[in-house]
Amino acid sequence: MKAAEIPGKGRPATAPGVSMRALRFDGTSPKLVKAQPRPEPADGEALIRTRRAAVSGIEIELCRSLLGFEGTLGHEFVGVVEAINGDEHPELLGQRVVGSVAAVCGRCDMCQTGLRNHCRNRTVLGIMGRDGCLADWLVLPAANLELVPDSIDDDHAVFVDLLACAIQSARQLTIEGKPYITVLGDGPLGLLMVQVMSKLNASVRLIGRYSEKLALCEKWGVKHRHIDDIGRRADQDIVVDCTGSPSGLEVAMQLVRPRGTIVVKSMYANRADGEAAIDYAPIVMKEITLIGSRSGPIREALSTIATEAIDVVSLIGKRMTLNDGPAILHTAAQPGMLKVLVDV
Amino acid sequence: MKAAEIPGKGRPATAPGVSMRALRFDGTSPKLVKAQPRPEPADGEALIRTRRAAVSGIEIELCRSLLGFEGTLGHEFVGVVEAINGDEHPELLGQRVVGSVAAVCGRCDMCQTGLRNHCRNRTVLGIMGRDGCLADWLVLPAANLELVPDSIDDDHAVFVDLLACAIQSARQLTIEGKPYITVLGDGPLGLLMVQVMSKLNASVRLIGRYSEKLALCEKWGVKHRHIDDIGRRADQDIVVDCTGSPSGLEVAMQLVRPRGTIVVKSMYANRADGEAAIDYAPIVMKEITLIGSRSGPIREALSTIATEAIDVVSLIGKRMTLNDGPAILHTAAQPGMLKVLVDV
Repeated sequence: MKAAEIPGKGRPATAPGVSMRALRFDGTSPKLVKAQPRPEPADGEALIRTRRAAVSGIEIELCRSLLGFEGTLGHEFVGVVEAINGDEHPELLGQRVVGSVAAVCGRCDMCQTGLRNHCRNRTVLGIMGRDGCLADWLVLPAANLELVPDSIDDDHAVFVDLLACAIQSARQLTIEGKPYITVLGDGPLGLLMVQVMSKLNASVRLIGRYSEKLALCEKWGVKHRHIDDIGRRADQDIVVDCTGSPSGLEVAMQLVRPRGTIVVKSMYANRADGEAAIDYAPIVMKEITLIGSRSGPIREALSTIATEAIDVVSLIGKRMTLNDGPAILHTAAQPGMLKVLVDV
Repeated sequence: MKAAEIPGKGRPATAPGVSMRALRFDGTSPKLVKAQPRPEPADGEALIRTRRAAVSGIEIELCRSLLGFEGTLGHEFVGVVEAINGDEHPELLGQRVVGSVAAVCGRCDMCQTGLRNHCRNRTVLGIMGRDGCLADWLVLPAANLELVPDSIDDDHAVFVDLLACAIQSARQLTIEGKPYITVLGDGPLGLLMVQVMSKLNASVRLIGRYSEKLALCEKWGVKHRHIDDIGRRADQDIVVDCTGSPSGLEVAMQLVRPRGTIVVKSMYANRADGEAAIDYAPIVMKEITLIGSRSGPIREALSTIATEAIDVVSLIGKRMTLNDGPAILHTAAQPGMLKVLVDV
């Protein structure tokens, strides 16, 4: 058995002769490759034909080459299972699915103690050691997949990963006595976050920068303020930083009350140039609790989308196709851009 | 009433004609002033004759002029109450005391919600807006003071503030299932912290740099390792950073497991030069919880010292006198120096 065929190790083997389109980052810039070998599912993995994908800040960060990833980009998708390598989950064949993006080993101490998302041997779709979904096909372990019911169309289902991120933050909080919660940032994550937080027993507001996004909050009946119109009184019990900007945490540290909590979502850090470095003195002075929060529960997010309790369709900023290539990323990186969806 | 006489506002008025020695920072360097006007207690405050003081990292930081303090240095003391301005706490007159260093307003939202240590109008002895204890006299609100029982001598009692800091960290933690706790740093705070943490239902070790300090752990039956001898496996449930060094938090982020907790004690930050800036990407990636932790409960610390459950005397590095002046701070700043006590 060649190294590439060992399940869960390295990238999947390729199918000889079958090629596809893929938007890839080669360490320098993103490029649309027209004859990328199609990935082949390793043992227990499914081959998935991509229907729709989306672009997040993480793809833009990856293209700044600061996170060390090279390969096919993209981690948000809806697709159809075309093949499964192995006998498990035959019910998925031919079905529309979404999936958890981390492929885990199941054997390490993290996997064995309920922290599979932190598996020490994990690969992550389009982010770490595994080609992503901005391509005609992708592969993921069949165990990672969730059937998408007919009642949820692709435009809704493609938001499942981002909504799971927001749900994860709510899960990590202890809500007591109707706290004041500020969600910082009016990008797609912030706009999902403020909707999720609004279901809690809390007084929730969003602080943003773009009037059309604040208008969405108005439509949802959610309190909102423009960043230039707020005081810096330290009176918020909880601040959730969804700005994706290095300055977000600094503002959060100003707004949060002594002994308050800041949830940190932004994945922009890890910059060798130190741009994302922060002065954390207020953490000690104000005895702030900082909670890092990453990916969340796909199944719960899918159920939530099914209830239509969360407005995701208003978050669509632009529709593009895979053939638009690198322009997809440039468009997604425009200031104020909402979610870019990609037809594959 | 002049501004200086309003209780809790500004520095105490001075007694005409009475002067004293005081080790002061003038914004440039520390100097021993021989004829500093003696502070006069405002309404509700006690005039305290200093017997013994000690020096912490915070005094050294203050002399780097990065925290904006000017005035008499020092916040760790044992003294005798010579006078009280007002009728309250007459039992303290002539008695040996220690004290909480923050003078609070009692009226702001923080004071009213059990967070007096975070009073929005506070002054802090020798740290913020209030002259400190490296002087013949100091003043503090009588309500801040605790009687020192005869069974506790000055050498023990002077550790009460630092021990309270360590107790505070233990209070802020949720201990479940015998967690692995690493205390980073073998300065006086780290050496108190590891003793306090050892009383919890946890597996505790100290990581330090100096063999004579690690030998103290050996004497106490506490696990210890030299910083150069540890792996960077991310397997610690809790890491308490007592290094007082900007690199401490980086090491802590390497040692803590995904979803683990880091307690941040170091007060060295707030540097305009950015030296203390950190890359906080691992906080998100590993979903770390960071807890800022500052000063703690003086009364509980005093009770703990009375039980002799914590060895403080072994932490005395050098004895000096107030007349040693700035040399006190230079001595305290020497690498590896334990606690410097000052006879006043």
